[in-house]
Order: sequence, then C-alpha cells, then structure tokens
Amino acid sequence: MITDHPWLGSLFGDEVVAGLWSADTQLGHYRAFEKALAAGLAASRRVPQDQAARAIEAVDRAEIDLSSLAKSTLRDGLPLPDFVRQLRAAAGPDEKAIHTGATSQDVLDTALSLTLRDVTAVLVERVQALDAGFRRLVSAQGDAPMMGRTRMQAALPITVADRVRTWRQPLAEHAAGLDALRPRIERLQLGGAVGTRNGWDRDGEAIATHVAQALGLSAAPVWHTDRAAIADYAGRLSLVTGSLGKFGQDVALMAQQGVDEITLAGGGGSSAMPHKSNPVLAELLVTLARYNATQVGGLHHALIHEQERSGAAWMLEWMILPAMTVATARSLTAALDLCSRIERIGTPAPKA
Amino acid sequence: MITDHPWLGSLFGDEVVAGLWSADTQLGHYRAFEKALAAGLAASRRVPQDQAARAIEAVDRAEIDLSSLAKSTLRDGLPLPDFVRQLRAAAGPDEKAIHTGATSQDVLDTALSLTLRDVTAVLVERVQALDAGFRRLVSAQGDAPMMGRTRMQAALPITVADRVRTWRQPLAEHAAGLDALRPRIERLQLGGAVGTRNGWDRDGEAIATHVAQALGLSAAPVWHTDRAAIADYAGRLSLVTGSLGKFGQDVALMAQQGVDEITLAGGGGSSAMPHKSNPVLAELLVTLARYNATQVGGLHHALIHEQERSGAAWMLEWMILPAMTVATARSLTAALDLCSRIERIGTPAPKA
Amino acid sequence: MITDHPWLGSLFGDEVVAGLWSADTQLGHYRAFEKALAAGLAASRRVPQDQAARAIEAVDRAEIDLSSLAKSTLRDGLPLPDFVRQLRAAAGPDEKAIHTGATSQDVLDTALSLTLRDVTAVLVERVQALDAGFRRLVSAQGDAPMMGRTRMQAALPITVADRVRTWRQPLAEHAAGLDALRPRIERLQLGGAVGTRNGWDRDGEAIATHVAQALGLSAAPVWHTDRAAIADYAGRLSLVTGSLGKFGQDVALMAQQGVDEITLAGGGGSSAMPHKSNPVLAELLVTLARYNATQVGGLHHALIHEQERSGAAWMLEWMILPAMTVATARSLTAALDLCSRIERIGTPAPKA
Amino acid sequence: MITDHPWLGSLFGDEVVAGLWSADTQLGHYRAFEKALAAGLAASRRVPQDQAARAIEAVDRAEIDLSSLAKSTLRDGLPLPDFVRQLRAAAGPDEKAIHTGATSQDVLDTALSLTLRDVTAVLVERVQALDAGFRRLVSAQGDAPMMGRTRMQAALPITVADRVRTWRQPLAEHAAGLDALRPRIERLQLGGAVGTRNGWDRDGEAIATHVAQALGLSAAPVWHTDRAAIADYAGRLSLVTGSLGKFGQDVALMAQQGVDEITLAGGGGSSAMPHKSNPVLAELLVTLARYNATQVGGLHHALIHEQERSGAAWMLEWMILPAMTVATARSLTAALDLCSRIERIGTPAPKA
Repeated sequence: MITDHPWLGSLFGDEVVAGLWSADTQLGHYRAFEKALAAGLAASRRVPQDQAARAIEAVDRAEIDLSSLAKSTLRDGLPLPDFVRQLRAAAGPDEKAIHTGATSQDVLDTALSLTLRDVTAVLVERVQALDAGFRRLVSAQGDAPMMGRTRMQAALPITVADRVRTWRQPLAEHAAGLDALRPRIERLQLGGAVGTRNGWDRDGEAIATHVAQALGLSAAPVWHTDRAAIADYAGRLSLVTGSLGKFGQDVALMAQQGVDEITLAGGGGSSAMPHKSNPVLAELLVTLARYNATQVGGLHHALIHEQERSGAAWMLEWMILPAMTVATARSLTAALDLCSRIERIGTPAPKA
Repeated sequence: MITDHPWLGSLFGDEVVAGLWSADTQLGHYRAFEKALAAGLAASRRVPQDQAARAIEAVDRAEIDLSSLAKSTLRDGLPLPDFVRQLRAAAGPDEKAIHTGATSQDVLDTALSLTLRDVTAVLVERVQALDAGFRRLVSAQGDAPMMGRTRMQAALPITVADRVRTWRQPLAEHAAGLDALRPRIERLQLGGAVGTRNGWDRDGEAIATHVAQALGLSAAPVWHTDRAAIADYAGRLSLVTGSLGKFGQDVALMAQQGVDEITLAGGGGSSAMPHKSNPVLAELLVTLARYNATQVGGLHHALIHEQERSGAAWMLEWMILPAMTVATARSLTAALDLCSRIERIGTPAPKA
Repeated sequence: MITDHPWLGSLFGDEVVAGLWSADTQLGHYRAFEKALAAGLAASRRVPQDQAARAIEAVDRAEIDLSSLAKSTLRDGLPLPDFVRQLRAAAGPDEKAIHTGATSQDVLDTALSLTLRDVTAVLVERVQALDAGFRRLVSAQGDAPMMGRTRMQAALPITVADRVRTWRQPLAEHAAGLDALRPRIERLQLGGAVGTRNGWDRDGEAIATHVAQALGLSAAPVWHTDRAAIADYAGRLSLVTGSLGKFGQDVALMAQQGVDEITLAGGGGSSAMPHKSNPVLAELLVTLARYNATQVGGLHHALIHEQERSGAAWMLEWMILPAMTVATARSLTAALDLCSRIERIGTPAPKA
Repeated sequence: MITDHPWLGSLFGDEVVAGLWSADTQLGHYRAFEKALAAGLAASRRVPQDQAARAIEAVDRAEIDLSSLAKSTLRDGLPLPDFVRQLRAAAGPDEKAIHTGATSQDVLDTALSLTLRDVTAVLVERVQALDAGFRRLVSAQGDAPMMGRTRMQAALPITVADRVRTWRQPLAEHAAGLDALRPRIERLQLGGAVGTRNGWDRDGEAIATHVAQALGLSAAPVWHTDRAAIADYAGRLSLVTGSLGKFGQDVALMAQQGVDEITLAGGGGSSAMPHKSNPVLAELLVTLARYNATQVGGLHHALIHEQERSGAAWMLEWMILPAMTVATARSLTAALDLCSRIERIGTPAPKA
C-alpha cells in the first residue's frame, strides 16, 4: 500500500515498475497470451484459421468488466475464469479458439514472465547507470584520501576509489546475474489443467513452440509447480538491494559529524531542527535492503508447492514478488540520486 | 499493492482496516495531535489560551496540499515538516501554538497508536465473531464422528467438536493477547527533537499528560527508540493469522477427495475444469498466515534502532506493519466466511 | 553447531542455557513426566499403588541406551517410542504403569515446558542484572554531556543518562513480558494419542491435575496443535536480543574515531593491525539480534500445525527454538560484560 | 545444536558435511592458506625461499592449542590473531614468512571457499543420485495412473511419471545452479588489513595469483565486503531443500488414508499407536525446507556489510550458513532414502 500512497509513494514507490504490474498492463499480457494461443491452435489445425482470426479480433476488442473480474477473483481465487468467460462472450461462436486446453495458471504465469522480462530490462539499465555514476565519482574524486574502517574502527588510510570500488564491484555481477536469469524467467507457461498438456493430444509441444515464439519467450517445459526460478529471481532482487544497502549504510556513516567524510546536496529537513540535513536517501537504501531481505524467505516457503498446483503457495508469490520488484527499482533510483548528490567525499581538509 | 488492486483487492484486501491507514484518516490523526498539543501548551501557559484556540481552529480549517506533502516526503523522508509548515501558514500569527517543542516522530508515532487502537477494536470484534461461529458449528455438528489424524496419518476416531476445539482454543488467547497489548500500544508519543522533552523545560510531563488525555491515550515515557511493543503487536497479528492458517490447512485437507470430511458451499471455479470446487478461502488462510510469518522478522530487525532516532529502522516499520494489519483483518473475514460455508463436517455417511 | 564449537563456542555459546537442553537434562524431564504419570494413574486407581511405586523406581533406575534412542529417532522421528520401550523393559511386569494413555508429544512438550521454565529463570535474572548495570552506569556517569543523534546526524545535546535510559527502558518490559508468559509456557501437555485424553476414560482431567502438580506446571487444556505460546515466547526472546542489539549498535557507533563517546576496556585485537581495539561484544549484540530476528519467522510458519499433530511443523520448532534461547542468554552475558567494560562515556574532554 | 545431538542428530544431522566444518578441517584450511601465502611471499621475493620453506614446515608441525584459540575468539571475535601467534611462535625466527600482509578475514573467507567447494561436491553428487533414483522410479512404475490434484482437489488423471517429473525437473537445474556458482564461490580471499592489498606494495596481484593456484581457487578481486555470492549460495541451498520439500509434502499427502497413492517401507512408529506408520522422512523434508527458507533472509540482511569490514554482518554468516549446508545435505539423503522406500506409487487397485 505504501508504494502508491499519496505522499509516502513519492519516497517508496516507483512508477515505471509499478506500471508493469498495473491492471492495464496485466490485461494486455492476458490478451496477448490468448491471442497467441488462438493462433497456435490454428497453426496446429485444432481450430480453423479464420475462426482463430475472428477470435483474436474479439480478444482485442473485448471490453473487460473489472468489477466482474473482482467478483470472480473473490470466488475463484483468481480472475481468469471470468476473464475467459468475458472473452468467450465477445467471441460468440468463435469461442472455441479461446483458452482451449489452457488453464488459468498458464495465463497468469506467462503474464508474470512477460512482466519480469520488462522489470529486468528496467533494472539492468539502472544498474548500469549507477555503475557509470560510481565510475564518474571515482574519476572526479577517487584520489582523495579517506580512512579505511573495519569493525567500525579506523584501520588504515585508503582512497575514495578503494571505497567506491566496494560499492561498484557487485553491480557488474548483478547485471550479469539478472541476465543469466533471463532464460529461466522469460519462458512460456503452458501446461493445461494438470500441467501435462493433455488438452491438446500430441500437439502440445507444437502449440507451446508457437505461442512462445509469438510472445518472445522460450518454450520451456511446464513449470506449474517448479518455482525455483521465481525464488531465485527474488533472491537476485534482494542481492541488488543488499549491495545498495551497503552503499547507503556507508554514506550514512560517512555523513556523521566527527567523521565528515561526505557532503551531500539537498538532505532532508526536520520539523524540530531546521539546522539538520538528514541523509534520507542513504537511510532509505538500508530500509529497502532490509525490506527485501525480509521478503525473500517468503518465496522460499512458497517452493513447497504441493501436487499439480498449490493455491496457497502460488498466492503467496503474488503478495510478495511485485512489491519486491518495486522496492528494487526504487532502490536503484535512490542510489542514483544519492550518488549524484555527492558533492565532496573523502577526509575533510583540516580546518584552518 | 495487492490489497487495493482492481481485482486482487477483493481477495486480499480489507476496506475497513485499509481505511484506518488512509490518507484522510492519518491526516485526521495528525490534526488531532497538533490540536491536543496546542491545548496542552495553553494549559501549561506556554502560549495564551486564545492563541491556542485560534491555532486549533486553523488546524481544523487548513486544507492540506497533498502534492506538497509528497514533495516533502521525498526530500525529508516524512511528510511532517511540510504538514507543519502548511498548518503554520494557516495559523499565521498564531503559529507558535502549533507543533512547538514536538518533532515529526511524535506526530507519526501517535498517529500509529491511534490507528492500532482502531485496528485492535476491529480485530477483537472479528475474533469474537469467529469464536461464535465455531461455537455454532460445534452446536450443530459437533457430535459427528471423524478421524483424528496425526503426522498426516489416520490415528484414532475423534468428534467434530474435538477438531473444532483446536481451531477455537487460540481465539480466546488472541482476544486476550490483543487486549493485553492495549496499554503498551495505545500510548502517546511525545519526546521532542531528541526524545527528552527538552523543548518544554519542566512542563514536558504536564503537557504529555494533557495531550494523552485529549487523545484517549496513556501518557507513556518517550518510546522513540523502544520499538518492542510494535514488534510484539506484529507478532500477535501473525499469531492470529497462524491460527487461522491451521484452520485453513485443515479444511483444505478435509475437502480432499478420498477424505471428504467437509462440504463447503460456493467453492471457487476453474478456467479449465468446470467440475471443480476449489477451497479458495481455506488456501487464502494459509497464504495470509505465511505472509505474516514472513513479515514479522522485519519488525524484529527494526528493533535495532540506533541512537535517538533511526530513519532506516523506522521506515521499515512503515513498509511492513500496515500490510500485516490488513492481512490479519482479511484473514479473519475469510475465516468467518469459510466457517459459515461449512454445510457438512465429519466422516461422510457410507455410500449406499 | 556454532554454540558448542571448540573455539567459536566461547563467543556464541552459553553453557548454562545449553545445559538446560542437554541430553541428560532432557532425559531427566522425560523420566519426571513418566514418574508423575505413573503416580497419577495410581491416584486415579487405574493401576495399583504398589505397581506404580515399583514402576517409578524402574524409571529412576533404568539406564537409557542412547544409541538405541538415536536409531529410534531416525526411524520414528522422535526418541519416545524407544525411550518408553526401554523404561517398560526395565519395569517388566509393572510396565502398565508407564506411559499408559500418553503419547510422545505429551512427554516432549512437557519437557519443553520444564526447559523453558528454567530458561526463563536464567533470562529474567540476567535482565535484572543488566538493568542494575545500567543503573550503576547512570549513577557514575549519567550527568556527562553527549550529543543526541537522530537519523545518524548530530541533533541536540543530551546527557549520558538520557541515552542509557533508552537502553534500560525495555528491560523492565522484558522481565515483565517473560513473567507474563509463564502461565502460558509452564503448563503440562497431556492429551494422549489424538489430544482428547481418550485413553483415560473420565479420569483424564484428574490425572492431568495430578501430573501437573507433581511437575510444578499448570494443568492446561491440551495444546498439541496450539503453538501460539511457543511462537510468542520466541518473539519475546527476539525482543530481548533486539533491545540489546540497539545497545550494541549504539556502542559501536560511539566507539568510532571522530565520535569518541565511549572508552571500553579490553577490546578485540586484529591479526593485521595490533593498534586496533575492536568493539567485538557490541558487534556480537547486533549479530545475535539479527540472528533471532531471522529465526522468529520460522516459529510463526510452524503455527500452521495441521490436524491433530504435525510432524513437519513440530520438528521445525526443535530446529529453531533451542538455538534462540542460547542466543538470547549469550546476548545478555555479552551485554553485561560490555556494560561493565565502559570506562568512560559521553563527549570527550577537548584535547589540550 | 540439533545436528550433533546424541539422538536428534541421527535425524537432522549429516556427518559428511558437518565434517567439512569441523575444527580439524578448518584448521587444515587455515594452515593451507598460511603455507600458500608463505610460498607466495617467497615467489615474489618478499621473503627468502628457505625461510619460507622452514616457515611452511613450522605451520605443518605446529600443534594448535584449542583452548587458547577459544580465549582469543572470545576476546578478538575470531581465532585468527591467536592462531597466527601460535604459528609464529612455532616458526621462531622465520615468522616473517607467516601471515605477513594478510588479515584474519583473508584466512577465514578462504577457508570458507575451500569448505563450500567441498560442500558443493557432496551436494551435486547427491542431487545426481536422487535424479537417478527418480529415473528408476519412473522406469519401474511411471505408467501407473494416479489422480492429478490442483488446489488440493482432484482434477484430472495423470500418470506417476507426470508427478515424478515435477519432482525431478528442478534437480538438473540445481546441479547446474551449484555448478554455475563455483567460479563465484571457489575464489581466494586476499586483501590485507583494509582490502586493498596494501601490505604487499605492487606484489599483491602476483601473490594472490600464486596463493590461489596453490589452493585450487580463482584469484578473484577482494570480496571482503561483497557478500552477494555467499547469500546467493545460501539461496541455492534453500532452492534445493524447497524442491525436496515439495517432494516430501506430496508423499505425505499421497500416504494419507483415503488417498493411498503410495506405500512406503519402514515408516515411523508411535508410542501411543503401534498400528501407525508415519511418513517421517517426508515430513522431515518439509521441515528442512522451511528451516532453510527461514534462514536465507539472515544472509541477505548480512549483505549490509558496512565500510571495509563488518564484524556484525560477518558473524551472522557464521551463525547461519554452516547449519544451512548441513540441512541441505541431510535433505538430500532423506530424499534418497524416501525415494528408495517407495514400494508402490499410483492409484491403488480397487479392493476386491
């Protein structure tokens, strides 16, 4: 709730990534799935080509009644039965080309794949922008001396470049790690009622290949109950925010009076102490890191996905994962913002 | 985000408790705090009585610019500096009666106390309603036999009353537990800049007593950095959802084909298998239990609240606690709904 | 494993509380249960008085073969079936007075109650000792000035007493909180196979009262599947370590060069930098706080205790709770030790 | 503590992986590091070749006083300062070849790399053995029919092969995932006091290359504060146990009376109900999955590793990671054992 709150949303939210989870975007993914499936059914000659074409038009054209979806979700635990009903009503006699052989989870999980694909693109771009920001910081101020500190104690002198290297080093791995997850995340879900593609006789694989290609996803084996990639993705999100949390914690420590190793432009004000300049973004990075670190375990509990489909474990993903992506996206913009506000870094010049 | 989603919100959300966290309600609490403080300042003769009266009117009257609050939150990490600025602008020459000696945390934490007070009232009422529901279930069907099962294996026969007793037993403790937390939760926060009430000289305690009384809260010692009661409250929320998760898990197990120990009215439909009736509410109870069980650790991490105020730890509370209260409230209505849908419970009559 | 490691154990372990979980202590509790039950069976005339007396002697006398218990545990998931078999073998013709009507969970949960009773006593004593330590610190150095710091920024001057108050304040609540949990923790478990006391006809309550009295526990209703009190107890452990984590974090921050608000006797050495004095105990307090904050969620997941007994959820308690008690006990001795090492606290005198 | 408990250890422990964390094994890794470093110092001509040779002999020969290590650990927060002192005492005039330029974290983290390398080997072998076990199960009984179940409700018939495929599918990914982590886990740590290799002038990289080669590790950049790979490794452990938890949960559900889809050899007995055969190993798989799912968040919190070395975050790794590896190793043997006990799987033949 906090990410779209009238005022807290400005601090904790991220419009870009939140938009990827919006009702409109998700309905778009659902439609894309059903259209690709209709085309796939036609390609496998399970429905006539022209019927599929009309059905695809109907899917495009159908105006979805959201309040009806909401009622269905309350009753059925997910919006799909009603969504399909609405599409089929729009398709009329061509309804056989819609959703035939598929199950709700196919649609919702495929929409998840499409969403995470887009989330990944946003995150990788921001990781790289932050990497460039740190690189610029090193160029500008990397030679400045500062105190290396271990176990919260002054140890030996280092340079600003040494410290910034520890912020920057994980970023390349995060970009690579997000990239390495793509094949396991950007994949079609298409299994039918019990995950065996039993509704399409021997055409299952061909249809899956067709639908996957249409959606720009890989035609993976059914993963209805194999949620490891989802939990792994969530882990990567938390690795990103964890690294940025270290950056934030370091900045907050450097900004302390008596340490004075950093000067930030535009810190936060206080209602009681107008003289203060709080390192709000640095604190926020720590908060978001601990938020994701808290969430990640939930998706590991959701791995215990019983039998051919677990409503309980699956719904837990819905409650946790979108919020983690927003937190990660926000963490990256906060880090970028914080990096760009660093006016001075390193041991302060002794006062005259 | 899920709780106010156009369709998922109907399954996961709770309008009543979400309303207690709404912008309007929170602004109401902020205003109530500032008015009570103005009155307290007057009672301690730190501002003239009529000035306080005019300031109170200004607080009531001030139209709050939410977009300005949002900008302030992004900059300052919280909306209060700007909220106070807007109130003071409305009060003009009487601004001295507004917020003097207080700090943002005083307002936000007091608003939290007022919110949790109202949350508790909702939850206790629902716990009692569920208790009555279980009582009715026992009255109607408690003598029916069923199989007692341990470690997922049939053990020895029990009655429906025996099983329902295990669902019901924790409820009394939850009601008592929520009640026992009241004195530690429903308390004023009033500490000023660094939690020492230093802005009111020797009047701090008198003002605190006055403000607390006006708000119907206890005049506790300052708890800026002592967040144990908050984490304890979150723990209680998760104890409630955990107990209901056991109820849900049991119902889902009883509803299995081959076990057939329960018949539910109005189960959820499937987009692939119209013959199915899914125990969606039972699954939801498990999901919400695991959601809260995942969240509770975050508030324990937030106990490490450094120095006189930790932005990082405090913001983590904001991200986690409201969602937990909504999950708990929804869990209770789902349990009530599920309980009322039990048409038959116990060993089925052998088929003729 | 860390708590009884040859060298790490000295830092992370606690011999006193670890001893309460030792094999010997636990076997003692198992014996105490079986003896009290034998006496209870005799008191209810379900076995002859002299038979019970001989059985009690046999329980005292029986030498338990631990390797046989280990084999049983691997096979049965718990040591009790074999433990009872060994006792009965020792009792020979009097075996009817041993374990009759009871189940393994009765013994193990009652042993847990007895263990937590003793854990609580240790913890409360240490909480009070730490409270006294902080009180002495205030007496000695409370008037010294220091800087109040909010959001990691210097705010306004406070005194040492103000800061120490924030460390001390939660302790009274922890002592009270542990005390308030006693009635819910120190209770007999006695339910028999499926938790209905069905093995003793109408004598169940009388036997429970007798056994409870003999063991110094309350004769609670059966709580085989109602684990809320266990999770609540774990929560309290984590509240304690969380408060001490704040103390540790504050000390580590105060000990920074440039801040210099504390001088500690006997800090830790470094293999690379002999000049350093690391605030090891302060760091350890943070570590233990985050350890418990991580664990507590596991016990909330274990609330979903299906049907009449969940092997899976119950075993999760065994894996998590003992380690949490040791971490809490160690946190308290570390805090006591750290408190006693504070040679100087507050703003340092300006250098000449 | 549970994994080396006299009787619980047989159920929860794993001697092979526990042995990789034993004092002896760890001291062996410490010695290996110091010997490789001595050789590296000689290769870079920072100490004479013969001095290094004698120092290496001394490292081999030195008898380590464990009680002294324990005292050091309590004082210094880690055993290394004392371990190095003991080695140097043994080396006498050759002490300059020992540990020069290195820091405690170099030794401990490198020992961690060596340990996780060996853990990975054990786990991968067991994953493959389990994969083979499932393959055999499919060969033998894969064609048997059974009911596909979604959301805990009978859906449509599937075959045993379909169900076992969902257990088997994640295993290949786990083996690949563990393998993919090797380069990021099996790497030298060598940074010196503040992670900059400042103690070896320009020879740092050459020495690192030499030491890495000697130990069979990669010569990675310093990762003192970049703990992402550790948290990622922990995540993989939990992905493994999560998948096996699904297997265990499914078996427990299949073994229910009324479902009867599986017959297991040698189930666990009950102290109250001799007729029962409890699916202990299946339950254990669920327990271990939830244990690791609970732990993984702790290592994500430990990512916030402040400045050049965080004692608090680092020690949290020590408390959590070893126990996770043992839980994972045990989960794999339990799954192997459970798989081999499956006598019959699939819909039971109708009773005559």
